[in-house]
Amino acid sequence: MSAPVRIGLLGLGTVGQGVVRLLQKNRDEIARRLGRPLVLTHVYTREWSRRRECDLSGVTQVREARQMVRDPAVDVAVEVMGGLSPARELILEAIAHGKPVVTANKALLAEDGNRIFSAARERGVRVAFEASVGGGIPILKVIREGLAGNRLEEVAGIVNGTGNYILTQMSEHGVDFAAALAEAQARGYAEADPRLDVDGIDAAHKLTILAALAFGMPLAFQSVAIEGIAAVTVQDIQLSRELGYRIKPLAIAKRAAAGVELRVHPTLIPQAHLLAQVDGALNAVVVQSDAAGTTGYYGRGAGGDATASAVVADLLDVARLLGADARHFWPPLGFDPDAVQTLSVVALRDVECAHYLRLRVADTPGVLKAITSILAELDISIEAILQKEPQNRQDATLAILTSVVPEHRFNAALDKIRGLPFVRPGPSHLRVEHFNGK
Amino acid sequence: MSAPVRIGLLGLGTVGQGVVRLLQKNRDEIARRLGRPLVLTHVYTREWSRRRECDLSGVTQVREARQMVRDPAVDVAVEVMGGLSPARELILEAIAHGKPVVTANKALLAEDGNRIFSAARERGVRVAFEASVGGGIPILKVIREGLAGNRLEEVAGIVNGTGNYILTQMSEHGVDFAAALAEAQARGYAEADPRLDVDGIDAAHKLTILAALAFGMPLAFQSVAIEGIAAVTVQDIQLSRELGYRIKPLAIAKRAAAGVELRVHPTLIPQAHLLAQVDGALNAVVVQSDAAGTTGYYGRGAGGDATASAVVADLLDVARLLGADARHFWPPLGFDPDAVQTLSVVALRDVECAHYLRLRVADTPGVLKAITSILAELDISIEAILQKEPQNRQDATLAILTSVVPEHRFNAALDKIRGLPFVRPGPSHLRVEHFNGK
Repeated sequence: MSAPVRIGLLGLGTVGQGVVRLLQKNRDEIARRLGRPLVLTHVYTREWSRRRECDLSGVTQVREARQMVRDPAVDVAVEVMGGLSPARELILEAIAHGKPVVTANKALLAEDGNRIFSAARERGVRVAFEASVGGGIPILKVIREGLAGNRLEEVAGIVNGTGNYILTQMSEHGVDFAAALAEAQARGYAEADPRLDVDGIDAAHKLTILAALAFGMPLAFQSVAIEGIAAVTVQDIQLSRELGYRIKPLAIAKRAAAGVELRVHPTLIPQAHLLAQVDGALNAVVVQSDAAGTTGYYGRGAGGDATASAVVADLLDVARLLGADARHFWPPLGFDPDAVQTLSVVALRDVECAHYLRLRVADTPGVLKAITSILAELDISIEAILQKEPQNRQDATLAILTSVVPEHRFNAALDKIRGLPFVRPGPSHLRVEHFNGK
Repeated sequence: MSAPVRIGLLGLGTVGQGVVRLLQKNRDEIARRLGRPLVLTHVYTREWSRRRECDLSGVTQVREARQMVRDPAVDVAVEVMGGLSPARELILEAIAHGKPVVTANKALLAEDGNRIFSAARERGVRVAFEASVGGGIPILKVIREGLAGNRLEEVAGIVNGTGNYILTQMSEHGVDFAAALAEAQARGYAEADPRLDVDGIDAAHKLTILAALAFGMPLAFQSVAIEGIAAVTVQDIQLSRELGYRIKPLAIAKRAAAGVELRVHPTLIPQAHLLAQVDGALNAVVVQSDAAGTTGYYGRGAGGDATASAVVADLLDVARLLGADARHFWPPLGFDPDAVQTLSVVALRDVECAHYLRLRVADTPGVLKAITSILAELDISIEAILQKEPQNRQDATLAILTSVVPEHRFNAALDKIRGLPFVRPGPSHLRVEHFNGK
């Protein structure tokens, strides 16, 4: 058996502790796979005083992070600190010292990945990041390598477990958004500041990475259209269910005639579709490609152990190619860096999809006629309609599913409908995905 | 852009034609990924006279297969002829000439893979075989590399699309096995001789490969317990459904106290489980592992295009490492060959699982008491029981779900029950998997 591969770990939060535990627990199994041991030799954290659920005996506790990434006694650096800085500077410093990096940092890669990958390429070192998307599901390897014979058409998924947990709670227990969020926080799914999750930012970070791998485009976080889930009501969930749909927090990257669509928003999905059946904090991703067709992947999207699974898989991949010429590496996005192409991103107003519209209207004659006339004028078909009995003496609730139309046309109709005298303030509007029946 | 990688193709059936089409259709996308083109330069088939749905212009048509695998003008050989011989001899010849091989040949690998991998190791060349299991789902890469940080506990899946199609037809349309099989043949899913599919042999070949990758054990086809689906009746499907289960053709590789279980048989699965929802000719695999937990994978398990997707992914993997030292290759089973360990396979009679039992009994007093007494004597609990009204004047149908018991104990009970005077011939018996609620 050859010499051990020496791992330096930056960060000792949930994921970092998971990595420590997994390297210890599966030490023998990992050495059986790699033909040599993976050994954690160095650890850095900003908060040494915190209680840890892992054993660090025999591991050098580093007081200065930059010292570790420069240390020739560390073969591979693992960055699981999160946040943009100092993670970015440490990764760049490791690269500058010819040290491969494994990172789980979706935010940093989505926002600054192009620069990091470019530095890694110049220095001929690898940056691996399976742990940044989908937790224990090896979805990046699947897209980069497993489906490499295909031209990918669409990647759509539930990639934020907290958002999915909240909508599932609302759906199953009829509790409102605030109560479901509190429950998610109590269970440790959501952070104290849950905005990254519920505003869709975390999902957008992950979508940025998925799209870059799927289409061979640069990381383009700024181009992702993002809507959070806070506006979804229990009533929307119930009405959608009656119409045969579930509401899921979806991230979608899709080729369209005018470019690629990159969007994160709560979405109605036909209830028979796999993604509609993925509940709680689980993640799932569905890929459409020309040869393999529709393939689907699901599992735990977060948590220390599931994310550590991805980190250690990357460590094995990186360790196996230590000392090899860089031309033998899979490039980070799966495309030759010279062939990565900027693609035009379709503005949300030009995206074509079906829409769900919920209205509260006065219970007077002619309401339906006025609304349907506006839709007809703008050449929007009604695919389904549901009118519930008035909730009080005056108001009725109306839910409408439209045909597939450009969003600006739907918005024009919505503006006119809002202006009708008997339509109450605050109609609710969500997008619908049919996946072409796949 | 570097020089093209030159591909020699052995076999021009459904998969071979799919490979030809895919290499042409996605030529540019593939070159963008690899940084150099993959070009089909040589083709061999035994039947040049057959009509093909692919364009072979510019491709050298080789009359002698052995000539191609020796030809230095071919960089990688793709074997999609199927069958044991001459595929085995051609692959060994290619290896002997230092030529990497991509193959879809599950039967050959399951039965003779140890010898092939050993020859490849001695010569320092790669044999890639993603296309042998799961069609377009990159399940082997997932298990070998994506989950490499884990100790795998169980791999269970629907890996024979024909079998799944037949049981789905029986379930959805109430047609019997023979009619469903005829329909599968008419649709081109099943071969004219469908025994490999319906007898479970094809699934057992694939399970052999999955188990070797999951546990780092040699390919052990002879140790797989195999039962086909021909004995499943529409009544079994209907009774199972009433009990909350679906019957699926399952391949299971699972660690148990006494070793590993390797078995292929029709299986009752709780209807909420992902595998219960995979219908028609689709494949799906669920993996239990210690860090990632439960992850699932589904897609098209067969067909020329889906299988070609896997072949071309392997070609990219192999092409990227052309010229690299063999120590940088992922070993074929994902474990260092010196660490591959023979594991003892649990005999079917010692496998512990729950059972479904369907009986036709005379409609006389004391029947249920006699049957339940036998089960109680052997310490077998009844988890569920369903008695249907007599179908004619004398017989009633009884369906029983038992607790988890060693199969020999269940068989002992079954023998005694068979001996009861009022039990009609031919009770039906199927195994049940609960996946520990996962």
